Amino acid sequence: MSSTRDIDALIELMAKLPGLGPRSARRAVLHLIRKRSLLLTPLADVMQIVAATARECLNCGNVGTTDICDICTSEKRANGELCVVEDVADLWAMERSGVFKGRYHVLGGTLSALDAVGPEDLRIPRLVDRVASEGIDEVILALNATIDGQTTAHYIADQLEGRARLTSLAQGVPIGGELDYLDDGTITAAMRARKAL
Amino acid sequence: MSSTRDIDALIELMAKLPGLGPRSARRAVLHLIRKRSLLLTPLADVMQIVAATARECLNCGNVGTTDICDICTSEKRANGELCVVEDVADLWAMERSGVFKGRYHVLGGTLSALDAVGPEDLRIPRLVDRVASEGIDEVILALNATIDGQTTAHYIADQLEGRARLTSLAQGVPIGGELDYLDDGTITAAMRARKAL
Repeated sequence: MSSTRDIDALIELMAKLPGLGPRSARRAVLHLIRKRSLLLTPLADVMQIVAATARECLNCGNVGTTDICDICTSEKRANGELCVVEDVADLWAMERSGVFKGRYHVLGGTLSALDAVGPEDLRIPRLVDRVASEGIDEVILALNATIDGQTTAHYIADQLEGRARLTSLAQGVPIGGELDYLDDGTITAAMRARKAL
Repeated sequence: MSSTRDIDALIELMAKLPGLGPRSARRAVLHLIRKRSLLLTPLADVMQIVAATARECLNCGNVGTTDICDICTSEKRANGELCVVEDVADLWAMERSGVFKGRYHVLGGTLSALDAVGPEDLRIPRLVDRVASEGIDEVILALNATIDGQTTAHYIADQLEGRARLTSLAQGVPIGGELDYLDDGTITAAMRARKAL
């Protein structure tokens, strides 16, 4: 049995992370071994903790270390606004912007006939319940501007028709964006939604 | 205190790995949490083991989990050939090719006047000792084809003059390489070292 068996196992597991292949996993592992006390040991410790405690919020689907997440338990965030996102990564992106002060609902994907993903796979029934029970005035559909995302947004809009005000994120030129680098669809959307100065 | 404190700490540590930034670290952590039993728990376990056991071979500088590495203890590898590499990653690359059956000596870097790296920082004295004590006939200088690598190779060649046969890796067109994509230096080297068919 090789004395490097554990190191090989570590490389193999690291290579399964998104964004890392075998080559970058080897580089990362060598870096970890060189920075053992600064990086490897703390990383191993916090991974143990997260492996033991991380869970999905039973209410909104956010990832945290409690059954109901901080955002769902915070009274300050109960302002009648509910932002619907596809994924936890999207929720984190919204939180980094700091622009939204209400609560979230994480669908966990988009409707997809091809992959046989239906409404009950996506926390959509739970969304309908929440709109009724949490006194939601406005549901902001912050789904990705992809075909699946927009299909899902339309389905949800149908389900919530008449129960809350429905809005979606504005589409247009990103801040700092250069027209020359934008796709035709974005330019078309920005042109159609043009505003008076 | 946020319930996501440990998750944030995990993202921060993952972002310190080479090849991962804050964005890819967040993606990786979400992936880890989703694949908890398949990936996060095994990774945390093997990291604990590696953090506790990984060390540099006292003889050659290879990374392993024993004081003297497998290659240095294997009698099969004592064939009188010693391959000098800059880094453990280079040793791993040589081992993957499977072409070399002797032992290694990992310098741990290259000589550099700018960064004040001298011979005693690089296991060069240990290399001179090994050539005498391990009955080495041939020292293969497999250093990178960079200025620092070649400076170091010349220094080592001076030190080992007359004590063993010194060779270096051939330079030329890589297998599968297209002339159009090669730099001038490689083409010049390949032309000068051209062989009769």
